[in-house]
Amino acid sequence: MDEIRIAVIGAGRIGLTHAENVAHRVQGARLVAVTTSNQQRSAAVQEYCGDVACYPTLEALLKAGQLDAVAITSSTSAHADNVVASAEAGVHIFCEKPLALTLDDCDRAITAAEAAGVKFMMGHVRRFDTGHVEAKRMIDSGAIGRPLVFRSISGDVDPPSASFADPDVSGGLILDAMYHDLYLAPWLMADKITRVYAEGGALVDEGVRSVGDVDNAVVSLCFERGGMGSLFVSRTTRYGHDLRVEVVGDEGAVQIGRFRQTPVRLMDRTGVHHDMARTTPERLGEAFVTEMQAFVDCILNDAPSPVTGYDSRATVAVGIAATQSLHRAKPVNI
Amino acid sequence: MDEIRIAVIGAGRIGLTHAENVAHRVQGARLVAVTTSNQQRSAAVQEYCGDVACYPTLEALLKAGQLDAVAITSSTSAHADNVVASAEAGVHIFCEKPLALTLDDCDRAITAAEAAGVKFMMGHVRRFDTGHVEAKRMIDSGAIGRPLVFRSISGDVDPPSASFADPDVSGGLILDAMYHDLYLAPWLMADKITRVYAEGGALVDEGVRSVGDVDNAVVSLCFERGGMGSLFVSRTTRYGHDLRVEVVGDEGAVQIGRFRQTPVRLMDRTGVHHDMARTTPERLGEAFVTEMQAFVDCILNDAPSPVTGYDSRATVAVGIAATQSLHRAKPVNI
Amino acid sequence: MDEIRIAVIGAGRIGLTHAENVAHRVQGARLVAVTTSNQQRSAAVQEYCGDVACYPTLEALLKAGQLDAVAITSSTSAHADNVVASAEAGVHIFCEKPLALTLDDCDRAITAAEAAGVKFMMGHVRRFDTGHVEAKRMIDSGAIGRPLVFRSISGDVDPPSASFADPDVSGGLILDAMYHDLYLAPWLMADKITRVYAEGGALVDEGVRSVGDVDNAVVSLCFERGGMGSLFVSRTTRYGHDLRVEVVGDEGAVQIGRFRQTPVRLMDRTGVHHDMARTTPERLGEAFVTEMQAFVDCILNDAPSPVTGYDSRATVAVGIAATQSLHRAKPVNI
Amino acid sequence: MDEIRIAVIGAGRIGLTHAENVAHRVQGARLVAVTTSNQQRSAAVQEYCGDVACYPTLEALLKAGQLDAVAITSSTSAHADNVVASAEAGVHIFCEKPLALTLDDCDRAITAAEAAGVKFMMGHVRRFDTGHVEAKRMIDSGAIGRPLVFRSISGDVDPPSASFADPDVSGGLILDAMYHDLYLAPWLMADKITRVYAEGGALVDEGVRSVGDVDNAVVSLCFERGGMGSLFVSRTTRYGHDLRVEVVGDEGAVQIGRFRQTPVRLMDRTGVHHDMARTTPERLGEAFVTEMQAFVDCILNDAPSPVTGYDSRATVAVGIAATQSLHRAKPVNI
Repeated sequence: MDEIRIAVIGAGRIGLTHAENVAHRVQGARLVAVTTSNQQRSAAVQEYCGDVACYPTLEALLKAGQLDAVAITSSTSAHADNVVASAEAGVHIFCEKPLALTLDDCDRAITAAEAAGVKFMMGHVRRFDTGHVEAKRMIDSGAIGRPLVFRSISGDVDPPSASFADPDVSGGLILDAMYHDLYLAPWLMADKITRVYAEGGALVDEGVRSVGDVDNAVVSLCFERGGMGSLFVSRTTRYGHDLRVEVVGDEGAVQIGRFRQTPVRLMDRTGVHHDMARTTPERLGEAFVTEMQAFVDCILNDAPSPVTGYDSRATVAVGIAATQSLHRAKPVNI
Repeated sequence: MDEIRIAVIGAGRIGLTHAENVAHRVQGARLVAVTTSNQQRSAAVQEYCGDVACYPTLEALLKAGQLDAVAITSSTSAHADNVVASAEAGVHIFCEKPLALTLDDCDRAITAAEAAGVKFMMGHVRRFDTGHVEAKRMIDSGAIGRPLVFRSISGDVDPPSASFADPDVSGGLILDAMYHDLYLAPWLMADKITRVYAEGGALVDEGVRSVGDVDNAVVSLCFERGGMGSLFVSRTTRYGHDLRVEVVGDEGAVQIGRFRQTPVRLMDRTGVHHDMARTTPERLGEAFVTEMQAFVDCILNDAPSPVTGYDSRATVAVGIAATQSLHRAKPVNI
Repeated sequence: MDEIRIAVIGAGRIGLTHAENVAHRVQGARLVAVTTSNQQRSAAVQEYCGDVACYPTLEALLKAGQLDAVAITSSTSAHADNVVASAEAGVHIFCEKPLALTLDDCDRAITAAEAAGVKFMMGHVRRFDTGHVEAKRMIDSGAIGRPLVFRSISGDVDPPSASFADPDVSGGLILDAMYHDLYLAPWLMADKITRVYAEGGALVDEGVRSVGDVDNAVVSLCFERGGMGSLFVSRTTRYGHDLRVEVVGDEGAVQIGRFRQTPVRLMDRTGVHHDMARTTPERLGEAFVTEMQAFVDCILNDAPSPVTGYDSRATVAVGIAATQSLHRAKPVNI
Repeated sequence: MDEIRIAVIGAGRIGLTHAENVAHRVQGARLVAVTTSNQQRSAAVQEYCGDVACYPTLEALLKAGQLDAVAITSSTSAHADNVVASAEAGVHIFCEKPLALTLDDCDRAITAAEAAGVKFMMGHVRRFDTGHVEAKRMIDSGAIGRPLVFRSISGDVDPPSASFADPDVSGGLILDAMYHDLYLAPWLMADKITRVYAEGGALVDEGVRSVGDVDNAVVSLCFERGGMGSLFVSRTTRYGHDLRVEVVGDEGAVQIGRFRQTPVRLMDRTGVHHDMARTTPERLGEAFVTEMQAFVDCILNDAPSPVTGYDSRATVAVGIAATQSLHRAKPVNI
């Protein structure tokens, strides 16, 4: 196989990002189709990705054939069904995080992909960001000694629509927006999370509150070897898309993230001013290319998927537990 | 009164800092004595502060008279008794944090000072640091909107001696070393803490473990109006004395702290390098002068104490609750 | 024309960068060939750009036809001849900076391109870097008042080979490596350079010295409206590829550049450490894509070239004058 | 001698700084008097320094006796006479930079101090700033290899009064405000300046222009061993008091200075904002204490002066040459 024919399932913000990258930046791959029932999104795909087929549904796409792989970017609540259908059609699968809203759905998806013998990779994009990759390398090299504490912040400038924020669709704040930190924590600490405790509130956004979710939360983690975590997630960090991670070890620490985005500072009589990343593509754009390239390469080289369904299942388990803790005001063991 | 005659009770690290400042930098004050039973510390006082009297005990000092005020820097477990004795001797009182290890002792000290009609100020030094002062001003001016979340880290390079770390002496990690964050949180958020949850472990230091304490901990806070806190305290941030605070509001955020101490960077073939503060005087030195000046000025001008015993009592209450949470693995309401 | 067929002339480091971008990242363009007589470079092109034709010479390439445009990345001393030949063949021309080593050659190239009626764009890549673009926008918006002083540093980690450094090939340190600053200065200041003064020396590299050039130099500029410049160029900034520009106005200043490349910091007992860009693609990589896209777009849309031969001629004039000043130890008017 | 009795000559901004430090922060010294004929300044001294004698002239002060040392902070044009008179009175001398406006006056002052056998120390305050001290230590330790290039910026927020800016009083922009960089350059490079070239203009301030001086200038330096300098001085860096120095060596570089003053950042929807030092005491405050302590200590310990009149004479020579270059538009050898 010289060139992987990829279709993107869903044409939302993240779907369009993947579609553009496959169309223009990922080598060894070709964007052949997207699925969307929305005319506007379909037009956006044509504008940014060139002339590609648009199907109203995954079924229609799979029926048309001529496909090697799919990148699933539909609502989280649809992921498991999409994975199962794609697996049964025998195409390789890239699926945006989180794998599903329940552990049963995670298992169903994992089982289907394994039964079909297709490649199955989860979209853990920050695993492909230079900052995170370098931090992992430093930690593994012993530069900070033994990792003790994981700290993080994940902030979005503005809340999503209430329909998206709906816990039945997205899984709620923690599973949706703290997901990355919850999978980075055990990866960077090289340990397992055994207990979580969450505090949260619908402090700002009426839409989020109306669907029964919270817009800001803090989570404590306890790890198997005694390490800890202190995490903060927000839908309302108005100042920017704030992604920061620190791991403190018994001999040092690493910090991932930066405040300044554009390499320019303005200085005037009122002080010093600069910008900050405001969107995920601004902060992580190149990592999406690296990630999709990794997916394409693992198909081309018949290599193992770098991020498995089990990785996502473990993260979903922690996210569900933290969400339960939030509602029960009690720590939850995992 | 033109010049306040001050004695420093205790000649440990922080005692010596206060003694030097009174001797050389605080205006309207004169260092007249210290109390210490340790010959070496007594010699250090003479070296850094000039020729001042040394008494073996507070009783001996108070008996000698000729004193307007004391700065109490003894072990936390001795604070309440020291405050009571000083109040009964009619001298003004500055007391290092925390006021005491129990709420009963806090009350006893507060009552004694009130009964004596002396000035009584607690050592909340970060209230006098330019960074914290400016952050408070910004928050109060509305620059970040409504405060939602308080985040902090307080790290010491190396653990104290086991005898100091002993919870019966210092109150343990949270009360001793997270104290500043626990009083800054409600001050900056302008709200009350209603619930705490803590995770912690003796992950590094044998001495700390041997006296039944932990050396690293994370704490979650819940505030009355729904805000939250995510705090980390460590006795083992080998890379520096790391004091950082952030308050995120619904329109912005403020961050206090800095990484670079000396204003110089070295750049070589291996990268860019700079130092970081490693001790409290390096990071906060000038604030100790401002703080002690505030104490002297409130005596000279017969003005109210800027930090009261009640302020410390409230912080001690939170610290005790968080320590309980740590041991019980349950959230504790306040 | 739907897709511009582009050939890259020369397959050195910058040639390969342009070739890769045309092959994989620039939209509306296709890499159809490169010219190189070097087998290794030809192999590198195949590896990074896929299966493209390789011609030993520009003549052979042009003779083969089937070409819409060329990107000239040969030695500076060959630029003018390459431009003339390409213009006569009727293909659009992108030419790496500087246009030529003499003003006569600049004129010859400009005249040929105009006579042929082809698009002609110079490779002024920093005009397409987000930091420089944003600084220009800020200055033009009046954010710093009237620009007064331009400061810059351009540093390369290691000297080029002596054969490349040879002033007869590259134009020497100032024309070759300070070129970007010399065109940015009048662009950002919106003014004309009227006088230059240079100091320089072959302080480090024997190869550079052996061909009669210098490896470090500082240049003063005087502008028509009285503004000034203070520039530093180096072939030996071992700590990184250091590109910084500042413009100070009568109401403020802007600074372009950054020290940290990868968004991660390591902190250990010896201090805080991070990396810095070490190569042009690390610091400016994305700008090369934006630049080549601009070239392709100006062909597709029949729009004016954003950077003309006249722009480069003006910069070459300043570079030659500064090089003369260096050798004569006298200021030179322009 | 246990306590040095010091009088401050002149009670301008810098005089008041020294007076306050001697009064409150320098150990082993006592402020006994100031000289000023200005009632307001005299009142300011009383307010900040306590009850000290005020004399209208240096003569009156010296006649009154009871003095061990003077700190001369009068106009530069009066320095030499003040030094001579003080030396003849047998008191130790600290003199603000620059020593004088002419080399003859420098010599006269140096000779008088040597003849009197008194301690004579010049006010080179940045030699006592932690950043500069650490940079010097790094360079001397070989951390950057062999120093090649010195870069600096010295900017003041606003121009001084025309009467102060008057070259006959202050020596003009370069001698007055670039003085620190001109003495730091040979100190950090461990080399001698052999040639200077200056460009400058009265671009902003009418007052400065009216007395025949410039408000912004850039200077190139050539060192004996071939190194270079690229310096910028400004009376109008509205954004802050900008003091930065870099030394680039053949194995690395050091950078002195910082942008953020108060350790706090504000982040809102428009970006990230912080302040910058706006005055010399904000940026260098503690160094003035260290400096004056060094003067007092060299008297108390009968040790050599750490900064001699010869040091200042050498800097004055460079400053005069650079000022000549500015007016002649030619390089000037030293």
